[in-house]
Amino acid sequence: MTDHSHDWPLVRLGFIGFGIVGTGAYRVLDENLPAIQQKIGARLEVKRICVRSPEKPRPVQVDSALLTTDAHEVTDDPEIDVVCELMGGVEPARSYILRALEKGKHVVTANKELIARQGHGLLSLAAQKRLDFQFEGSVAGGIPIINTLKVALAANRIESLFGIVNGTTNYILTRMGAAGLTFADALAEAQAQGFAEADPTSDVYGYDAAYKIAILASIAFQSTVNIEEVFCEGLQRVDEPDIRYARELGFCIKLLAIARARGDRMDVRVHPALVPLDHPLASVANEFNAVFIKGSAVGELMLFGRGAGSLPTGSAVAGDIMETVRNVVRGSTGRVACTCFTRKEVVPIAEVETGYYARIRVEDRPGVLAEVARLFGANGVSLESVLQKASHADVAEIVWTTHRAPEARFRAAIEAISQSPVVHEVCNWIRVEEEMG
Amino acid sequence: MTDHSHDWPLVRLGFIGFGIVGTGAYRVLDENLPAIQQKIGARLEVKRICVRSPEKPRPVQVDSALLTTDAHEVTDDPEIDVVCELMGGVEPARSYILRALEKGKHVVTANKELIARQGHGLLSLAAQKRLDFQFEGSVAGGIPIINTLKVALAANRIESLFGIVNGTTNYILTRMGAAGLTFADALAEAQAQGFAEADPTSDVYGYDAAYKIAILASIAFQSTVNIEEVFCEGLQRVDEPDIRYARELGFCIKLLAIARARGDRMDVRVHPALVPLDHPLASVANEFNAVFIKGSAVGELMLFGRGAGSLPTGSAVAGDIMETVRNVVRGSTGRVACTCFTRKEVVPIAEVETGYYARIRVEDRPGVLAEVARLFGANGVSLESVLQKASHADVAEIVWTTHRAPEARFRAAIEAISQSPVVHEVCNWIRVEEEMG
Repeated sequence: MTDHSHDWPLVRLGFIGFGIVGTGAYRVLDENLPAIQQKIGARLEVKRICVRSPEKPRPVQVDSALLTTDAHEVTDDPEIDVVCELMGGVEPARSYILRALEKGKHVVTANKELIARQGHGLLSLAAQKRLDFQFEGSVAGGIPIINTLKVALAANRIESLFGIVNGTTNYILTRMGAAGLTFADALAEAQAQGFAEADPTSDVYGYDAAYKIAILASIAFQSTVNIEEVFCEGLQRVDEPDIRYARELGFCIKLLAIARARGDRMDVRVHPALVPLDHPLASVANEFNAVFIKGSAVGELMLFGRGAGSLPTGSAVAGDIMETVRNVVRGSTGRVACTCFTRKEVVPIAEVETGYYARIRVEDRPGVLAEVARLFGANGVSLESVLQKASHADVAEIVWTTHRAPEARFRAAIEAISQSPVVHEVCNWIRVEEEMG
Repeated sequence: MTDHSHDWPLVRLGFIGFGIVGTGAYRVLDENLPAIQQKIGARLEVKRICVRSPEKPRPVQVDSALLTTDAHEVTDDPEIDVVCELMGGVEPARSYILRALEKGKHVVTANKELIARQGHGLLSLAAQKRLDFQFEGSVAGGIPIINTLKVALAANRIESLFGIVNGTTNYILTRMGAAGLTFADALAEAQAQGFAEADPTSDVYGYDAAYKIAILASIAFQSTVNIEEVFCEGLQRVDEPDIRYARELGFCIKLLAIARARGDRMDVRVHPALVPLDHPLASVANEFNAVFIKGSAVGELMLFGRGAGSLPTGSAVAGDIMETVRNVVRGSTGRVACTCFTRKEVVPIAEVETGYYARIRVEDRPGVLAEVARLFGANGVSLESVLQKASHADVAEIVWTTHRAPEARFRAAIEAISQSPVVHEVCNWIRVEEEMG
């Protein structure tokens, strides 16, 4: 084998942010550098790393001379070719990226919130300047879902995309189901295992998943998605009995991030849903993520793997860096640009059609079941199954599932049912996704 | 939206072969042309299609003036930029591709046998000439496994790769397991459903899977794989009782295509194996394919989908065409070249370590079990479980599983056991893969 490495151009990287993802990407590059350089035909050097606290102990050893607390020493360094923004959050990340693009630098980022909120503008600016802008690490960690949608499935019309894209909530739901833990205990366990952050709000309320599905929908449907229009419900309403009853009915409960083509519009939302146990997404357990895609040509395709963590997300960032450097070396940066050519509206949740599961406490006497069923029917909601559960002290708990109906109709039915004199309480209701391609 | 289409360059395609895959790729391009052209910023035109029988009825309508029976009208047409070889087999496909490359044309192919046997030479020639050479459709149909290994996971050292990459045999094994069909009945059903070819030899004997795993291993380990060195065993020895006993032990039987890093060498092979029922590959049913990857950074990753068929494979070919055209338009063809920089040997099957399942008929009397166990031990094979099954007429059927051992040792043990006077017959033995990442 001939050593061509002395002929290879040197490409210099700058990092902004050196936490879990930043140190992960650094480690991935560092541990496999000879093979990585050979594959891209270039030498790589990390020239500068912007951190908040230079003194903080880190899981990787770097020369302290590389560290700075001033992001402009990265964005403005004329020798740096590629800026890796791995700090997260909208500001100041956005300003740093804009500055880097203005200075003619290619950008790699794993910043889901920023891409979901401002991706179109940033990508358009990069495209104008023929710069690369890569963000595979922003969705589902090491799972190459963005690359798959942009390149491998590019010839398909994407019909739907169902994702389990938040590891924390999937871990919590798995443990509530398998070990019968309460939400609080499952969350504490996830935190102890390092899957959940100290402040789990963004995960538990579904915001994290909403950013991710907004990004995937924009690529799948070639339209920017206004994140404010994405309906988002977290795990707040999932109770332990619901998980148990769902299983009896042949379902598990998953926090689904959903994007479906609906004519000229798109149906983009995040919420817990009952998923049939024999669907491939049902077997995605613990902290794992998966995206189940239905494409016009490819049919059903599922990608499954680790959706977070230092090395898996570092794998995606390092892959993006390699792709960018290939383009730098061949003068083809900006080769795959933003593909949001159209403007599609998001279907309001009231018009979205799913099936529904409802758990209702009623008086335990003849005619009550018929009355509740009548109220579903009167609102145009057709029933699929009914299951009488625990009954004591003249109160029966009844579990219903319905066929698909627009959410407005189901909510009207539930409102009427909750007002009925024979009903004690509508304990809970959860959407059901039975047809996922 | 501004219509820039009149500014876009025109890129002309030529097809050689217009059967299941060729017509599939054509349909995929044709049905989604406006969006496809917009994504790549180029207009596409299929200029010529080489077929064997121009009069044959086809599932897609094409202008008969495009058809020719002379492949040189495709390879030699100075207006054609990209040649899509979709006829399959080594010759004359290889000669046509060489001719196309000599004439400066980019090549897209789905020809697994050709890539497995001659890929390195063809890719090197393309790289020399800075031409694109894409072959995503050659492995696992619409599943973007080649693109994932080459781009998204490029920064990883790939540790292992376990694939179900032949839909016909997976369908047969699924139906033998779930419906208790015989091999012959399951094969007939697969043929009736269109999953198996009239001559199923290449599928059933594992050759098809061997070509595919040779291609994946060469990308994963950066070394060409000599297909003659890939151990390959098909479904010949899988019997219905083995499927039943495997399930009792917590396994299913799958035809696995395996590639593992083993120090400076690589372990590349195809054979049926017992797979734990709780492993994600166990739930890959019917005609579906999947590849389960373990990477140094990404950890476990699985891609699941339709591994064959007109539109899924057409999806991969059309994706390759789009990627090639992006490179043509940006002058960056040959951007991702062959990455076989090293020469690694394939571990001979005698040195490969797996667990084993064995079904053995013995005399039904005290001391016999101990004698068989002694013969395993004397050959350095350590036992994991033993299960006494049906016993009649003084003959007992015993099912053993072993811990991992080099195959040479297990074969020596089985040879000694089959010679033992207390043993009636070694009915069958099958490898066990318990640790897949």
